[in-house]
Amino acid sequence: MSATDLTLYELAGANPNLRFSPHCWKVLMALAHKGLAAERVPLRFADKDKIAFSGQSLVPVLVDRKETVSDSWRIALHLEDRFPALPSLFGDRGAIPVARFVNSWADTVLLPAVARVILIDVYNCFDADDRSYFRSSREKRFGMPLEAVVADQPGRLIDLRKALLPVRQVLTKQAFIGGEAPTYADYCVFGMFMWARGCSTIEVLEVDDPIAVWRERLLDAFGGMARSAPSVQCPGA
Amino acid sequence: MSATDLTLYELAGANPNLRFSPHCWKVLMALAHKGLAAERVPLRFADKDKIAFSGQSLVPVLVDRKETVSDSWRIALHLEDRFPALPSLFGDRGAIPVARFVNSWADTVLLPAVARVILIDVYNCFDADDRSYFRSSREKRFGMPLEAVVADQPGRLIDLRKALLPVRQVLTKQAFIGGEAPTYADYCVFGMFMWARGCSTIEVLEVDDPIAVWRERLLDAFGGMARSAPSVQCPGA
Repeated sequence: MSATDLTLYELAGANPNLRFSPHCWKVLMALAHKGLAAERVPLRFADKDKIAFSGQSLVPVLVDRKETVSDSWRIALHLEDRFPALPSLFGDRGAIPVARFVNSWADTVLLPAVARVILIDVYNCFDADDRSYFRSSREKRFGMPLEAVVADQPGRLIDLRKALLPVRQVLTKQAFIGGEAPTYADYCVFGMFMWARGCSTIEVLEVDDPIAVWRERLLDAFGGMARSAPSVQCPGA
Repeated sequence: MSATDLTLYELAGANPNLRFSPHCWKVLMALAHKGLAAERVPLRFADKDKIAFSGQSLVPVLVDRKETVSDSWRIALHLEDRFPALPSLFGDRGAIPVARFVNSWADTVLLPAVARVILIDVYNCFDADDRSYFRSSREKRFGMPLEAVVADQPGRLIDLRKALLPVRQVLTKQAFIGGEAPTYADYCVFGMFMWARGCSTIEVLEVDDPIAVWRERLLDAFGGMARSAPSVQCPGA
């Protein structure tokens, strides 16, 4: 399948190489899992009008020939249905509903817990226009200034590591959340780590955390696709 | 299959009809799902020596002919493997690893959140000997007196309802965590509600919570097995 059949609109930082959206990373891993290439289009918050055709204003947006799909979960289901002969994102169809729980947990528990550690770093990745939008939207969401959200960073890091307990417990029993091989359930959680890696120099995991071993495996997956992605530490050309 | 082939050792209160252990409820629902009957043996903490044959001291313990299985998760896997022709507990084999995540989340997040609301009610269900064991073991676990754990019950109830967000989000999209029909992933969460129902008169959910609708469905499942179970409100004969 040629790259031009699929187009993925992704959030980017002031440096357009920096693609750190956790939801976009779920989709990037899903595409790699299926062995699919996509044309990747960087988007700033200020460029929202460029995805107005999708009928909403959030990335990721996938355009598959004439079909437009937004929302990372719906994109994953779309890829699974459209490319049934390629490696399944879920292992079995019966695993899809439970993977949705993992996705919901990642979005409602893990994402805010990571945000409380790295929110200022995320902010600093944007250009002036996007910083202004990000500050006002996120300060509304958290009900306080960005600086106050991350004020007690060491304490928030402890909270984050505590919030990861169910993942940690599972990964002491099996190599991946999806079992012996990674599935979309893994990518839902991994996306949050790629967000932190993309924006921040803070190491969110302790070195002996079983989750760190799992994260290494996923950084290495698909020819090291995630590991070689530009980040604030290695912004690339 | 006759009831005498399977024996389930369950935690019981001072009233031996009261079987409220969340982990035992996972197994009771799993047995009902498979259409299996078991001889149910009530056990107080003080009776631990009666399950010494299992090589450990925790219920549930399932004895299946000459085989002894402890730990609710391992019992579920045992039932699935032993009775492959009966309705699957997981839908597909590929859903098992992800169901383990739901189980870990239920045990490490939901259980303590429910405990912070009902711990005194649980305590009150035991006889004098078991109260003494329960108080010392749980006060050690929580690092404070039982009374302090539940001191701000309205606040802890808000925390619990907040902790349930990923379940709530999933249940606005699908009837069960397992999809269109309940699977063991549902029972892992439902067990916590049966714990609260068994021990306490506190309603842990708001009336318009989608989780309350799901809970009703599971109370009605298998001929209303869970609904008709004795509780502090209806302790039975």
